[in-house]
Amino acid sequence: MKRIAIIGAGMMGSAMSIPARDNGREVHLVGTPLDDAIIAHARETHTHLTMQRPLPEGVAFYCFDEVRTALMGADVVICGVSSFGVDWFLQEALPLIPPEVPILSVTKGLMAHEDGALETYPAYYQRLSGRSNFYAIGGPCTSYELADRRHSAVAFCGGDMQTLRKLRTLLGTDYYHISLSTDVVGVEVAVALKNAYALAVTLAVGLVQRQDGLDATPAYNPQAALFGQSVREMTALLQLLGGGPENIVYGAGDLYVTIFGGRTRKLGTLLGRGLTMAQALQQLEGVTLESVVIARRMVQALRTRGQLAQFPLLQHVGRLLDGEQRDIPWAAFTTP
Amino acid sequence: MKRIAIIGAGMMGSAMSIPARDNGREVHLVGTPLDDAIIAHARETHTHLTMQRPLPEGVAFYCFDEVRTALMGADVVICGVSSFGVDWFLQEALPLIPPEVPILSVTKGLMAHEDGALETYPAYYQRLSGRSNFYAIGGPCTSYELADRRHSAVAFCGGDMQTLRKLRTLLGTDYYHISLSTDVVGVEVAVALKNAYALAVTLAVGLVQRQDGLDATPAYNPQAALFGQSVREMTALLQLLGGGPENIVYGAGDLYVTIFGGRTRKLGTLLGRGLTMAQALQQLEGVTLESVVIARRMVQALRTRGQLAQFPLLQHVGRLLDGEQRDIPWAAFTTP
Repeated sequence: MKRIAIIGAGMMGSAMSIPARDNGREVHLVGTPLDDAIIAHARETHTHLTMQRPLPEGVAFYCFDEVRTALMGADVVICGVSSFGVDWFLQEALPLIPPEVPILSVTKGLMAHEDGALETYPAYYQRLSGRSNFYAIGGPCTSYELADRRHSAVAFCGGDMQTLRKLRTLLGTDYYHISLSTDVVGVEVAVALKNAYALAVTLAVGLVQRQDGLDATPAYNPQAALFGQSVREMTALLQLLGGGPENIVYGAGDLYVTIFGGRTRKLGTLLGRGLTMAQALQQLEGVTLESVVIARRMVQALRTRGQLAQFPLLQHVGRLLDGEQRDIPWAAFTTP
Repeated sequence: MKRIAIIGAGMMGSAMSIPARDNGREVHLVGTPLDDAIIAHARETHTHLTMQRPLPEGVAFYCFDEVRTALMGADVVICGVSSFGVDWFLQEALPLIPPEVPILSVTKGLMAHEDGALETYPAYYQRLSGRSNFYAIGGPCTSYELADRRHSAVAFCGGDMQTLRKLRTLLGTDYYHISLSTDVVGVEVAVALKNAYALAVTLAVGLVQRQDGLDATPAYNPQAALFGQSVREMTALLQLLGGGPENIVYGAGDLYVTIFGGRTRKLGTLLGRGLTMAQALQQLEGVTLESVVIARRMVQALRTRGQLAQFPLLQHVGRLLDGEQRDIPWAAFTTP
């Protein structure tokens, strides 16, 4: 039996234990220092505290001070931290992982540098650690639904196809469908972009509520108009940022699931109703949405590069995130 | 004031009267011989019988035996028939329209020929009439929501960009956003494909109901997986059939609105629950869905060309439409 260690017991890291166990693997789930309550709760109840789903029989739970034990004999490590935990992982966890063990990251987003360069997490880890065996997961998959064993299609990406195949063998099930790609930039850019564009599409949900009241019948023409424009801009951005345009498959799927299955929808809807960013965040009770951080990074990078105006919908989202109140620039989307 | 005659008083044809009037045009709405009840009802109540929406002040209503009067001085004719009315339009209406008047068609779908060739309606009309000024509308726009003046993004396509610009001037409003394209095949193939793929994506809605009961919480990972695969296959099909791949913008938007705003969803959901085509049609009380006819044509054409197996999701839809009961072939969608 192969052994998989997951570091980070947030929702997505923990949800990965489910296909791993269903695939017959030995799973060690290790909390970060922020996850102590999750690990204690899981040990007691075998359910996940925040995801509120049962975790499979046979998953062993570890606090971070037991990480050395948990990592012994691991054939692969899944990095389950959010984008806020990337540097922690790099400094505290990575040095403990033997260099030959591949690392598969669930973290979504890109690093943005001051000069407007964007960098994937596998590239960032590689640059700072000198190791090369970093892999990442993209594609439309919410943790809740993975935990419910819903059919989910994802992409594993990284530099070495043979390792990717091994990772698929370790984690694939009859509901967790894994495509493989060596186009890390393409997969990761698609993942990062969907955060900004899910905000954009859900503006139309709020707009209808602003026009006709909160109990208005949902309208899909406006959402579809913004969805189409999102696909247009995402495809162009993929090419601009060096990824293959065919990754729009993951981007469009991920956009779809984020519009319907994610928390980003709430923020987009509130902004679409005409609330300012500050008012919207107040209603969301100050939750720091990872999607907003990622969207801001994308906007800022393109602004620095002088290329933001080519993407009028993304530019609009950036202005809303900056606190401006503006109507959707519909006329900017028609061609020619 | 420019005059627009609409022939065909179905829902989409009639809905076009709304941006036309808001744009300040004179509008003559002419029923086909099947539309007499709609025209009588509109004259009496100024609302549309089946769409159940008010029609704008100033629209003049005509039965088909008054078509010559209605067409006098028209600057453009909108062909508002469904795909079932195309040959009727060609034989009964077209000869009455002066050859210099451009015709803008709302009809969705493609003609399929026995050799597997597919033909757009503008090309079909042109071939059979020898006239060249046919234009068509694609993109995500349901008639109900257009009638409600929801923001809607469409594409007008045809051979002459100058005429397309004129049509946009005649019909564009601050909610009806018109892009222009001379890639008729690309726009029309995207429109036709979304019918088949909207069926495909909504199979996942029914699948979750089959697994967890009719009151199951909707799951979006499976829909997103099929949405991503749909985008992949539609992009490849656009290229195979001679349209530009950038038309996936209209295809993806149209797919989105059809999944949520159309009747096709009901059929896809029933098939996804495991009903046979015959059982599903019985539940739908025998309504002939245009989307099914269009989907069958696409499947049949690709089968004749020996290319259907390259598109496993479309092939699956074809098998369900043929009455087979089969599980979704998830494994066929992973790459490589």
